[in-house]
Amino acid sequence: MSEPGISANIGEELLAFAKKLFPITRSITGEGVRETLGHIRHLIPQLQVKEVKSGTKCFDWVVPQEWSISEAYIEDSSGKRVIDFANHNLHVVSYSTPIDQELDLEELQGHLHSLPEMPDAIPYVTSYYADRWGFCLAHQEREKLKPGRYRAVITSRKFDGVLNYAEVVLPGESSREVFLSTYVCHPSMANNELSGPVVTAFIARWLASASRKYTYRIIFIPETIGAITYLSLNLAHLKSHVDAGFNVSCVGDDRLYSMIESRAADTLTDRVAKHVIKHIGSPTKIHTYLERGSDERQYCSPGVDLPVVGLSRSRFGSYSEYHTSRDDFSVVTADGLRGGFNYVKTCIDVLEGNQTLVTTQLCEPQLGRRGLYPTLGARGVGSSVDDMLNVLSYSDGRTDLLRIADICGVPFSRIRHAATALLREDLLRAQP
Amino acid sequence: MSEPGISANIGEELLAFAKKLFPITRSITGEGVRETLGHIRHLIPQLQVKEVKSGTKCFDWVVPQEWSISEAYIEDSSGKRVIDFANHNLHVVSYSTPIDQELDLEELQGHLHSLPEMPDAIPYVTSYYADRWGFCLAHQEREKLKPGRYRAVITSRKFDGVLNYAEVVLPGESSREVFLSTYVCHPSMANNELSGPVVTAFIARWLASASRKYTYRIIFIPETIGAITYLSLNLAHLKSHVDAGFNVSCVGDDRLYSMIESRAADTLTDRVAKHVIKHIGSPTKIHTYLERGSDERQYCSPGVDLPVVGLSRSRFGSYSEYHTSRDDFSVVTADGLRGGFNYVKTCIDVLEGNQTLVTTQLCEPQLGRRGLYPTLGARGVGSSVDDMLNVLSYSDGRTDLLRIADICGVPFSRIRHAATALLREDLLRAQP
Amino acid sequence: MSEPGISANIGEELLAFAKKLFPITRSITGEGVRETLGHIRHLIPQLQVKEVKSGTKCFDWVVPQEWSISEAYIEDSSGKRVIDFANHNLHVVSYSTPIDQELDLEELQGHLHSLPEMPDAIPYVTSYYADRWGFCLAHQEREKLKPGRYRAVITSRKFDGVLNYAEVVLPGESSREVFLSTYVCHPSMANNELSGPVVTAFIARWLASASRKYTYRIIFIPETIGAITYLSLNLAHLKSHVDAGFNVSCVGDDRLYSMIESRAADTLTDRVAKHVIKHIGSPTKIHTYLERGSDERQYCSPGVDLPVVGLSRSRFGSYSEYHTSRDDFSVVTADGLRGGFNYVKTCIDVLEGNQTLVTTQLCEPQLGRRGLYPTLGARGVGSSVDDMLNVLSYSDGRTDLLRIADICGVPFSRIRHAATALLREDLLRAQP
Repeated sequence: MSEPGISANIGEELLAFAKKLFPITRSITGEGVRETLGHIRHLIPQLQVKEVKSGTKCFDWVVPQEWSISEAYIEDSSGKRVIDFANHNLHVVSYSTPIDQELDLEELQGHLHSLPEMPDAIPYVTSYYADRWGFCLAHQEREKLKPGRYRAVITSRKFDGVLNYAEVVLPGESSREVFLSTYVCHPSMANNELSGPVVTAFIARWLASASRKYTYRIIFIPETIGAITYLSLNLAHLKSHVDAGFNVSCVGDDRLYSMIESRAADTLTDRVAKHVIKHIGSPTKIHTYLERGSDERQYCSPGVDLPVVGLSRSRFGSYSEYHTSRDDFSVVTADGLRGGFNYVKTCIDVLEGNQTLVTTQLCEPQLGRRGLYPTLGARGVGSSVDDMLNVLSYSDGRTDLLRIADICGVPFSRIRHAATALLREDLLRAQP
Repeated sequence: MSEPGISANIGEELLAFAKKLFPITRSITGEGVRETLGHIRHLIPQLQVKEVKSGTKCFDWVVPQEWSISEAYIEDSSGKRVIDFANHNLHVVSYSTPIDQELDLEELQGHLHSLPEMPDAIPYVTSYYADRWGFCLAHQEREKLKPGRYRAVITSRKFDGVLNYAEVVLPGESSREVFLSTYVCHPSMANNELSGPVVTAFIARWLASASRKYTYRIIFIPETIGAITYLSLNLAHLKSHVDAGFNVSCVGDDRLYSMIESRAADTLTDRVAKHVIKHIGSPTKIHTYLERGSDERQYCSPGVDLPVVGLSRSRFGSYSEYHTSRDDFSVVTADGLRGGFNYVKTCIDVLEGNQTLVTTQLCEPQLGRRGLYPTLGARGVGSSVDDMLNVLSYSDGRTDLLRIADICGVPFSRIRHAATALLREDLLRAQP
Repeated sequence: MSEPGISANIGEELLAFAKKLFPITRSITGEGVRETLGHIRHLIPQLQVKEVKSGTKCFDWVVPQEWSISEAYIEDSSGKRVIDFANHNLHVVSYSTPIDQELDLEELQGHLHSLPEMPDAIPYVTSYYADRWGFCLAHQEREKLKPGRYRAVITSRKFDGVLNYAEVVLPGESSREVFLSTYVCHPSMANNELSGPVVTAFIARWLASASRKYTYRIIFIPETIGAITYLSLNLAHLKSHVDAGFNVSCVGDDRLYSMIESRAADTLTDRVAKHVIKHIGSPTKIHTYLERGSDERQYCSPGVDLPVVGLSRSRFGSYSEYHTSRDDFSVVTADGLRGGFNYVKTCIDVLEGNQTLVTTQLCEPQLGRRGLYPTLGARGVGSSVDDMLNVLSYSDGRTDLLRIADICGVPFSRIRHAATALLREDLLRAQP
């Protein structure tokens, strides 16, 4: 694969795009999702934005009403706004019902959410499926609230509308598919979750201009209800076409590379991600499916059984800033995003380059007369010759190049390079 | 399962029963076995005592003659009894032929057995299949014997009689069977082997009053020849009905929990016992089949191949008092027996509760609207919700609840509890 | 198997034979190979020396022309020979083209090979498939060469002749074969490679006079081209007959026992060699197939797939003297060769003794009445009784004696001994 669509300063590009999307008021439905998808479509014109009506049944779930919000604040008896949604999207519980009510501090406390153990952080709280209203604030701010009367105002609306998601399908030489999924429902948090759609959008842009063996199906959805909705519409197709899949989440910090195994734990996707993570060189962590938490929950559920693994840098739930206002651009950086992008891209490179080959000659071929082996025999040969001999020795029509790379303990790219040289000499052929 | 048949002071009850049976002169046949089985039948009226005639061929073996003994002693030239079977059952070699003979100490020594390395212990010695006579004594007593004339008297008899064993079958909802075996041939030793029949008798009493999915087949037999006899009579039935089996031995001391793997090492019974032992919390030991020694030798032999594991606290051969007079109620205690009882019972609880389930919904069901999931989404959910999500995520119709508990690393009871809640909501169904 | 053909001072015998063969000028073809094979035929009169014409196509290779050399030296301007092939076979690059030329030191340097990191060693260099000439010398000698004119003389010839190898087939009770291969193309190096043909020749002599269950096919070939040639002529037969095979190389030093796994890594041969190496007691090393380097490369290649492992003491490439003049009789010793011989022989002993048996009785047989078990039951039985019970307990018609030895963690000979006693009593029978 050539590398159009990737600029030298990809990290900065990713960061700039993330900063543009950060302030948008996203939830599982609504204008914020549409605005976000609109920005992504600027990168990938092929992107199709879909809508599913409120009330649509999706397996055990029903698409909820659409939610919109225009303002939300609490003012004290002097009229001073002590909390204001205009200052931070996280100040209001997502899907809060409308309210305009005066109440004592004591009563107000029942509608406030804060984290005593992280007193400067605003927590992220949602109530998609039960009617309530609430505000979130830093615990240190909450403690400053004096007894007295307050007025709580939320100007919001739930109504029969739509749930939106976006999809792009990039056809390849084969109709076999690689599936990528990421989510666009989190407001104003950087790693979980702007990094996922930002990195995935740039992956899609790169793939659109690359040569592709596989067909790529890439979706930007609200978490959980979006994945379930998408599966309810596309399950049969996915089950019959997808060879590998990735749920991309929390790929923007520069602290770790991690993955979440599929439920089966040994799919092609698992092998690819484990290989890539092994050679990526930074601190890494392989989580079992027990530590799942994002849409891999749906993709790997019984009866769905897609070969989907989670790709993350620092995975949701495992870093202190998770689901608070502190998950910002002190966590997500250009280096972190570039690492996340390369991580996903390298997985795709391995998938694209992987093949099961078989030798065309019995015994070792005579590499020397093809200029691939030193004609002077002495005490050792170089590693590129070793790579070729290993590819020849293990290409028995059952062992794919990825498996050979793992047997040899070397990065896939070296084995792919050796295989290419041998294919050129007709010393290997593809196993049909 | 409800818990009738288990009193709060089960440990004391077990110990009292063991003390009642301790003095009886047991061997592989004879009155002592019948008396012991009679006491057990007081606990389990359904118990059937069987008899097999001497001379009956059982695979490679023949049921031996019955042995009875009324007295055995050695007196010195002054008429003083220096060893007397009336003082301890172990003083005579089991199945000794009758004798009444005067002889020098030198000649007598050839008929004495003691343990120089454990000078205060009387060893346990048998000679079931070769005619000989002998006495056993503490080595420190043997060293006090002065040269001179002695008279050795054993008033015993071998005759065509019967071999006895007892069996109880407790029918369950299913005709699939759980098999329990323990042995009643050891005289006056507490851990090996009164603890086995004592604990098993109370397990049978508890099961008799419990609701049962499985049918339980429980036998009290003489070791080796009893197991071989029982198998020769019931092999076809056992091979076609038994799903799990336990050989219960040495379950009365409070030092360790241990098990002996079946020969196959990965049967349902092995999985159950390994799970239970992992969560039992005390020092534990898993022995491979190489360390077998009791009737699991027969149950797992080639062609028999029953899924039987051995359950022990401190296994035969692994504790210093084994097969001596020191295996008494300083070794076996109320706490030890209660632990042994709970160990066997917990294995049965797991078997009864285990099921292979399958989800009724594609993707995660919406637990929130069923009151099983918090409607307010924040940074984490509790472990009971995690248990439910794990049961749903792994119940694919192939993975039983026990496997799920092992995947999750939590006690089976937690997973069973979660499954029960989900079955109640029709979110799971049994895999037929 | 009885042990004719093995003298008490086998180590000295092996060493003497190695010293006789050491000075011969061997290459992949030529008089040196024929002379070497002639000496081996003195040990094994059944040995058949074969020839394959130059130019014969063998898979991807062509048998090269035969090479002969009569003299090779470099003299300085005073006529003094500064390098002379008469002093050491390694002084000339094997397959050097003829030359008689005066040239400056500077130009001569391009034809010299030495090892700066091992200044007293002459390296071993070959150029079988590209026309060139060259000399090898100790780096410390090379540094003494003064600027000036030199005359390089190599009186050699390449011509259409033959490639030679030798084969002996020793028929056994069965037509199933054990295959041994070793190579005879290395001049004047002791471990790699005189030890291989020397040990293998004595193994063949021993086998010729031993009773044999298996048929043994033993070949002495030039490395690589010889193995490829032999496979091209015999592949179908080998694939359909060979149950186990060994490539014997570097079996003469007394520092280590090692093996190279087959590509499949779990063949019968692998199990045998791993078992033997585990119980051989000295420092040992199991190399994976990644560390292959000799003719196992051909025997295990895709489509050939013979169950061949490499047996070595210190494997080629892993000891400092490898492929230099320092690989001499300071490396290879009588103790080393005897160890190598016993290593190969023990592998064969295991193959000969291995069987899959099945018990003839259900449950344990009564060993006591056959005199195989103590009739007096006390606290333990001896290890020979344990061995018999283990053989009986695991002989289920699927588990061979070698597997049982591995399960028990004891040397195969003990398990074989127990099995023999049980077969004698008709307690086991062979699984047809």
